[in-house]
Amino acid sequence: MSKRRIIFDCDPGHDDVVAILLALASEEMEIVGIVTSAGNQTIEKTTTNTLKLLSYLNITSIPVVKGLGKPLCQPLVCSPEVHGETGLDGADLGEIKFKPLEKNPIEFMYQTIMCSEEKTTLIVTGPMTNTAALLIAHPDVKEKIDCISFMGGACFGGNTTPLSEFNIYVDPEAAKIVFKSGVDLFMSGLDVTMKARLLKKDINAIRALNNGIGPILADLLDFFNLSTTVNFLNDDPNYEEGVHMHDPCAVALLLHPEKFVTRKLYGDVETSGEYSRGCTVIDYDGIYGREKNVTVAFDLDREWFAQYVIDSVGKL
Amino acid sequence: MSKRRIIFDCDPGHDDVVAILLALASEEMEIVGIVTSAGNQTIEKTTTNTLKLLSYLNITSIPVVKGLGKPLCQPLVCSPEVHGETGLDGADLGEIKFKPLEKNPIEFMYQTIMCSEEKTTLIVTGPMTNTAALLIAHPDVKEKIDCISFMGGACFGGNTTPLSEFNIYVDPEAAKIVFKSGVDLFMSGLDVTMKARLLKKDINAIRALNNGIGPILADLLDFFNLSTTVNFLNDDPNYEEGVHMHDPCAVALLLHPEKFVTRKLYGDVETSGEYSRGCTVIDYDGIYGREKNVTVAFDLDREWFAQYVIDSVGKL
Amino acid sequence: MSKRRIIFDCDPGHDDVVAILLALASEEMEIVGIVTSAGNQTIEKTTTNTLKLLSYLNITSIPVVKGLGKPLCQPLVCSPEVHGETGLDGADLGEIKFKPLEKNPIEFMYQTIMCSEEKTTLIVTGPMTNTAALLIAHPDVKEKIDCISFMGGACFGGNTTPLSEFNIYVDPEAAKIVFKSGVDLFMSGLDVTMKARLLKKDINAIRALNNGIGPILADLLDFFNLSTTVNFLNDDPNYEEGVHMHDPCAVALLLHPEKFVTRKLYGDVETSGEYSRGCTVIDYDGIYGREKNVTVAFDLDREWFAQYVIDSVGKL
Amino acid sequence: MSKRRIIFDCDPGHDDVVAILLALASEEMEIVGIVTSAGNQTIEKTTTNTLKLLSYLNITSIPVVKGLGKPLCQPLVCSPEVHGETGLDGADLGEIKFKPLEKNPIEFMYQTIMCSEEKTTLIVTGPMTNTAALLIAHPDVKEKIDCISFMGGACFGGNTTPLSEFNIYVDPEAAKIVFKSGVDLFMSGLDVTMKARLLKKDINAIRALNNGIGPILADLLDFFNLSTTVNFLNDDPNYEEGVHMHDPCAVALLLHPEKFVTRKLYGDVETSGEYSRGCTVIDYDGIYGREKNVTVAFDLDREWFAQYVIDSVGKL
Repeated sequence: MSKRRIIFDCDPGHDDVVAILLALASEEMEIVGIVTSAGNQTIEKTTTNTLKLLSYLNITSIPVVKGLGKPLCQPLVCSPEVHGETGLDGADLGEIKFKPLEKNPIEFMYQTIMCSEEKTTLIVTGPMTNTAALLIAHPDVKEKIDCISFMGGACFGGNTTPLSEFNIYVDPEAAKIVFKSGVDLFMSGLDVTMKARLLKKDINAIRALNNGIGPILADLLDFFNLSTTVNFLNDDPNYEEGVHMHDPCAVALLLHPEKFVTRKLYGDVETSGEYSRGCTVIDYDGIYGREKNVTVAFDLDREWFAQYVIDSVGKL
Repeated sequence: MSKRRIIFDCDPGHDDVVAILLALASEEMEIVGIVTSAGNQTIEKTTTNTLKLLSYLNITSIPVVKGLGKPLCQPLVCSPEVHGETGLDGADLGEIKFKPLEKNPIEFMYQTIMCSEEKTTLIVTGPMTNTAALLIAHPDVKEKIDCISFMGGACFGGNTTPLSEFNIYVDPEAAKIVFKSGVDLFMSGLDVTMKARLLKKDINAIRALNNGIGPILADLLDFFNLSTTVNFLNDDPNYEEGVHMHDPCAVALLLHPEKFVTRKLYGDVETSGEYSRGCTVIDYDGIYGREKNVTVAFDLDREWFAQYVIDSVGKL
Repeated sequence: MSKRRIIFDCDPGHDDVVAILLALASEEMEIVGIVTSAGNQTIEKTTTNTLKLLSYLNITSIPVVKGLGKPLCQPLVCSPEVHGETGLDGADLGEIKFKPLEKNPIEFMYQTIMCSEEKTTLIVTGPMTNTAALLIAHPDVKEKIDCISFMGGACFGGNTTPLSEFNIYVDPEAAKIVFKSGVDLFMSGLDVTMKARLLKKDINAIRALNNGIGPILADLLDFFNLSTTVNFLNDDPNYEEGVHMHDPCAVALLLHPEKFVTRKLYGDVETSGEYSRGCTVIDYDGIYGREKNVTVAFDLDREWFAQYVIDSVGKL
Repeated sequence: MSKRRIIFDCDPGHDDVVAILLALASEEMEIVGIVTSAGNQTIEKTTTNTLKLLSYLNITSIPVVKGLGKPLCQPLVCSPEVHGETGLDGADLGEIKFKPLEKNPIEFMYQTIMCSEEKTTLIVTGPMTNTAALLIAHPDVKEKIDCISFMGGACFGGNTTPLSEFNIYVDPEAAKIVFKSGVDLFMSGLDVTMKARLLKKDINAIRALNNGIGPILADLLDFFNLSTTVNFLNDDPNYEEGVHMHDPCAVALLLHPEKFVTRKLYGDVETSGEYSRGCTVIDYDGIYGREKNVTVAFDLDREWFAQYVIDSVGKL
């Protein structure tokens, strides 16, 4: 069986790193390109982090292309309070051993997708600027995109404002373009990603892995293990603190959909309002009666997920 | 101990009726006035329903005043699909035996509140038009209002749009005025009211009550027992269908706060946006760091609640 | 012929003073009350200014009532940069010789209007908070209001933002309520008020008046004679600097409509948007085809107007 | 002197045709490409119209590329009521004699701009979808764009809504991207284009031209000679009906800036609001104090303009 062709559109970022590792560890996925985005940090920093990661892993076969540096209609907002000044604080992955491909990111995505007879899947784990630009500039690309699996938004709640999740908040117009594109969409929003936690024991299991990446990844996760500001699902008295694996869900949902609770629903992005800019509007109850355009994940098997992450990292 | 003085601002409406019955049954509450609002149905119909209810109960001591007939800034939207053409379909409460008080509703509310040394509590179970007009026209009334307990809004989700609950959606500006008034607020939104269900067995227990109101109320509840459109909390495979007692929560929360899970939070109303007009913005995680102005109920003890409703109706 | 009954809803303010003087000088108008609003300055200051003006003129027969102190849905914004710290900088009108009527402003307006068989005209020269509250709390008052003539808004442009005029910007929801009230409306917006200028020679003519008010009014106007920020109608090379008599237009338009160019149009207020909150939307070209609800003044005979102001002040 | 390199981004459309003719007639301009847009009509029709025009003129040296078919974030709105079913009703330009270049429009624009050492000027006379996509997908192109001269928006008023001009209304997000791009902008909005009229006598002068294009262009203009819905500048009793040459201003302003009254101002696009979506916000009075990013034309010498159009068409 041929592997699934994957382009990452990402802003590493601690959880982006785990998402990439899951894809690298999978027998079913082949990463044919990584385009960086500005979000968790500036485009320079997320590109550096991507190159450092692949250099650390001695992977030189995957082209890395620096993406667009700012959102479509507004200035860039980053989140150093979450990911640190480098965007990947907590451990040093060492020197960069190769350069990014000197190519326009939109052209790179377009040509990489179009050059194969197989369709390509986009995994978007940052703001959707690059992917939106691709869909706008090359409408014919849609026929060659299998689907877009993204981390972003929420059916209920937000983490950057009460109504908005960070990735969507950073570039609401880009997200709106993706939601309205007609491409098959899989959304891992806060509804599910807040449940996709690695507990202390899981991080320790990763640290104990007898390979190069385990211990350093554990250090990165320790940094990322903040007391989250979004605790609306944590009222359970048995709640155990853990680090939220937002971005990895966008990979896991593609590979193991049976481990997730999902619904196909109508979704769009609110771009206006005093409070609501960047809010993903997911019509959970079908009130509007509009055509369903996005498969939204609401829950997952956490125990399975944690073991799956540990096992995947162990393969590298 | 003196009873708590209550003014109802309501649009009966099936669940408004239950809310009024709970207050009537309470030893601790004295209803000093009922002002009707336009929402579930037109102001004429909700006034008629209120008069019919009190007439049926042979209660002539509570002044009923017809409230404002339309929202502050937009045309009226009603919900006949939920409450029927009369606003109280399902049973006939019989003839009206007395007339509403011929008085301006805002003046009635103002004078009723100001004439007593005791503070008065407002229970608002419809759109907030009357209460907002009172707060605007008579800012000095705030010092004599103990608190406002209302059914409306949601921290997560909506029932009229994916982001908006009906009572707030009908008059967002009125709700915004109430949220910003500085008066102590208690919010029973969809977060809790979707859990405040009477199951089939509970309705049957009400029907079996050996008094005048039980059987007819059961008929009303049967009509109201629609398959709700808002089922986002119903994924539980053990979910048992039931009728949502939205409005009664606003009474029960005042009388038995210990049976509810609440948080005091910052809240406001979004009045603009393509999708978000009428959305209550509740800052669950304290992201904005603003002064907390509303105590929001998130959960309640359903078993207790059902029995409490049955017992209360049994007292009448 | 009986005089036209007038209630002023105003926030003096330099141009409010002139507006009041025009009404006082008119044989056709009887001011039956002045309710103050918060806008040019706080409610305390605009009330003080009103009392000082009437005291200076030895007029004790007109009841002055302190109005509502803040806009319906947002904090108060004042304009000390235009009207100074007192709201009426530039001259001292002396001591206050009487007190405001201790009455709720909305009740005062309502009772004053309803107590007469004649209809009453409202002249609103500040934010529309009081008038909106009146219309909300007492819908029956509309039948006894002849019309509302207001200074506010613009068909084209703005002075507080590129799209918004100050009075509407301060309380957009109040303005929206007035626009949608169904009461006959006459709008003197920036379109006309920017043309209603008193030139240096006119101010000097006022100063030369052989009466008590002329010289002190001239001093007030000198203060107000700022280089206006709104110069979009001033590209004429022959343009002569002058002080804009915004508020007096609302009086003059009622008394001398033949001196104005007006159109009856559909109008509303935009309350949302990144830039557009507080923008009056006037459908100059009838694009929407909606019922026309406001007579908008676009031009006036400036030479006549200046002489009319001078003559009116001369009568006092 | 080398000619100025021009790419047209246009949706012919009657006035687009005149704009292209002006550029063709100029010694100073060389059209290096025409990319069509969807606006006045669908992308198929505006492309057909462009090809027909060049075929009629026997011009085969200018590449024509079919542009993007729909706005970035919303469905397409066309204006058949203005331009007819074909988008160019009123005369038949005959058969198409050549095909469009089979190339992605964004890539075509990018490569055409980048392949020359000279900078290129964009003239945009329709919705800004293509140009926005270019700026997004290829940020480096900005350094090779001399400026963008566009027909669109208004400082005061609108023609599709009271606040919005058609080209901006069709794709507000695209326009916002252009306004915020940092590229030098020249705006011919309704403020000036409503004054850029050809009167009956001018159309007749074009018809009388002793060349191939004159008579047929006159027929097209006769169709376009509607009683405009936007008449806010027409209160002059001496006003003479005429056809508005919106798009040609974007060409004329580049070639003969001395015939225009312009101001460099801060501008942006409002994308939200009940009434204001698609409104260009031009800070005429510098209220915001922000960096000026657009040179806005407000007036022109109409007599000169009409003769200039006649003379230009006469050269072809």
